[in-house]
Amino acid sequence: MKTNFSKRAEGLKASEIRELLKLTEMPEIISFAGGLPAPELFPVKEMKQIMQDVLDKDGIAAMQYSTTEGFKPLRNIIAKQRMVNSGVNVTGEDIIITSGSQEGIEFSAKIFVNEGDTIICESPSYMGAINAFKAYRPKFTEIEMDDNGMIMEKLEDVLKKDKKVKMIYTIPDFQNPTGITMSDDRRKRLAELAKEYEVPVIEDNPYGELIFEGTTHPSIKSFDKDGWVIYLGTYSKTFCPGFRIGWICAEPDILQKYVIIKQGVDLQCSSLDQRATALFMETYDLNEHIAEIKKVYGKRRTLMLQSMDQYFPKEIKHTNPYGGLFAWVKLKDGLNSKEILEEALKEKVAYVPGGSFFPNGGRDNHFRLNYSCMPEEKIVEGIKRLGKVLYKYY
Amino acid sequence: MKTNFSKRAEGLKASEIRELLKLTEMPEIISFAGGLPAPELFPVKEMKQIMQDVLDKDGIAAMQYSTTEGFKPLRNIIAKQRMVNSGVNVTGEDIIITSGSQEGIEFSAKIFVNEGDTIICESPSYMGAINAFKAYRPKFTEIEMDDNGMIMEKLEDVLKKDKKVKMIYTIPDFQNPTGITMSDDRRKRLAELAKEYEVPVIEDNPYGELIFEGTTHPSIKSFDKDGWVIYLGTYSKTFCPGFRIGWICAEPDILQKYVIIKQGVDLQCSSLDQRATALFMETYDLNEHIAEIKKVYGKRRTLMLQSMDQYFPKEIKHTNPYGGLFAWVKLKDGLNSKEILEEALKEKVAYVPGGSFFPNGGRDNHFRLNYSCMPEEKIVEGIKRLGKVLYKYY
Repeated sequence: MKTNFSKRAEGLKASEIRELLKLTEMPEIISFAGGLPAPELFPVKEMKQIMQDVLDKDGIAAMQYSTTEGFKPLRNIIAKQRMVNSGVNVTGEDIIITSGSQEGIEFSAKIFVNEGDTIICESPSYMGAINAFKAYRPKFTEIEMDDNGMIMEKLEDVLKKDKKVKMIYTIPDFQNPTGITMSDDRRKRLAELAKEYEVPVIEDNPYGELIFEGTTHPSIKSFDKDGWVIYLGTYSKTFCPGFRIGWICAEPDILQKYVIIKQGVDLQCSSLDQRATALFMETYDLNEHIAEIKKVYGKRRTLMLQSMDQYFPKEIKHTNPYGGLFAWVKLKDGLNSKEILEEALKEKVAYVPGGSFFPNGGRDNHFRLNYSCMPEEKIVEGIKRLGKVLYKYY
Repeated sequence: MKTNFSKRAEGLKASEIRELLKLTEMPEIISFAGGLPAPELFPVKEMKQIMQDVLDKDGIAAMQYSTTEGFKPLRNIIAKQRMVNSGVNVTGEDIIITSGSQEGIEFSAKIFVNEGDTIICESPSYMGAINAFKAYRPKFTEIEMDDNGMIMEKLEDVLKKDKKVKMIYTIPDFQNPTGITMSDDRRKRLAELAKEYEVPVIEDNPYGELIFEGTTHPSIKSFDKDGWVIYLGTYSKTFCPGFRIGWICAEPDILQKYVIIKQGVDLQCSSLDQRATALFMETYDLNEHIAEIKKVYGKRRTLMLQSMDQYFPKEIKHTNPYGGLFAWVKLKDGLNSKEILEEALKEKVAYVPGGSFFPNGGRDNHFRLNYSCMPEEKIVEGIKRLGKVLYKYY
């Protein structure tokens, strides 16, 4: 049998990270691939009680169909507890629940992008977004970053010339894969440019609250007075990813499109998991839990950066994230991190090669390291092993 | 601000049923709209224990990311316990977990249909599928049904003439909205036609196990030797819809496309809900639970059909479902069930107008009745009220 797939499905390939995760799952490998939160921090004991309470109080509703928009008390909690931390004052009416922020990412392309239209993103950008967008057969224009994130002058150059730009996708806080954070003045400028050029900004913010030094940056959305910024949030990195609870915060007419799209795709998120998440957030202080996560990740981050400085060849550059889950390493031109990974796996250490984070390809001399889900001694040992491999090329 | 949506998003409207559900939620209304399973049958008590056990045994894994394909023990259980009831012998490898069968429906159009291609469906068909498909801007060709389902000669006529048919969507068992069931010989014929014309069949089967008389029909997939049939299943109607656990059973190369699409859309279904569902299915006999559901729904069905015969004008025709959740009513030509609904709501009774179940429009002289989630006395009272309204038009 020869199946005829649609044009969009023909071109799709499996995500490199998720295929890699399978390879790197062998217990003897020290894996800096993947982007998993530290599982030892999950509030399992608390959830046992929460599940009992939800099923006691609202068991039938937790097992029945519910609205596409999501469980209203949870939407209210997100507005009050989380959006306010990003400098955005909204109510539950301005929020819908999605299956992680991933669904918000995918739906955004579906809602805004026709075949051949341009999507602007950071160079590099989140592989899972790039792969989701590819199904809509867009053109990608990558905008260079410096230590303060996407360079606004370069962005405006593109917006001036390319009238087919339909969406700007950005991860301003501790970006995946680089760990780079956009400065506050650039956030303000991006909100202005969105309005001026009438292009929606998709602000994907899974890591913003995991800031190790200082307080959470104001979101791009907080500078947006006219509704051009669509904010995607998630509990995956601050609570747990297994329940698949994320959200979209946007203007009513835009939010309505997302609701219709979600209706068609999966009707709604899990009624039980939404209620359990809401009750957890009413019962416990997530800010306290986030403070614990930050303490653990911050130490791991410090140790990883220090270990790289100690064990990597001096010419190798890395970013210096002050939050989130990832650091980004740049090798000298001509080196291929995919090939080097094969050597690294022989030494029982793994990372994600950087090539797939560039939607237009090239630049294989980078890789991404995750420090959130590896105990401290393994971070040192893993970076030491990796250094040993890298020295062969320097 | 004037947002530019994509062509696909511009045309999308909210699902009539889900909007209606909001209107008909007032407690004084006897609503035969919606398609909810009877909530009093949900095994809430059992789930309380199951959730404790899952969180005790595998709490961390239940809160962490997992694979896109789904929890392997659950996939195995579905193969062994459910697919076998439909006459299909497969293993967990041939199954992936989706967010209800809705996700399988939406992904199918994404995988097989380019803009302008033809989707074949029954006339009428499931409104949630029609709305999901519309985002891919296809042409719909509706195939007439009789008491034995889609008429195969009419289907073949279309397949012969239209070379742009990319997908046949069918609900062979107790179809939504009509309650009609496809005969076994037509199932066999449909599998043959799929192979002959090289067109995939999407067999959507949420209701097949809810058969009140006799045993579950062999699925179309059970007649398929070459992989042209893609089977969509769900626990939403036999266990509970709130956990959003459905599945796709298909050939490996096709299944792989669904996995990549799911990766882009939502990464995976809830880790917790998948594990809880698996443990429930290992602990309890779902067939026994289904037997209970069938007893309750069967009585409600009988009562609704009898009440219609008693209280409706004699010229009005209805289907005689022997399973599932729905019956379908045909009024005389020229009547508009949307207009009549306004009168019905004044009498505090509701149904879903039939027009939206026809993708190409027209035929407003039909409506759908749900009998699964209304106690017996309310079924009689509701049909009596509806009869009173209908008599004004006869």
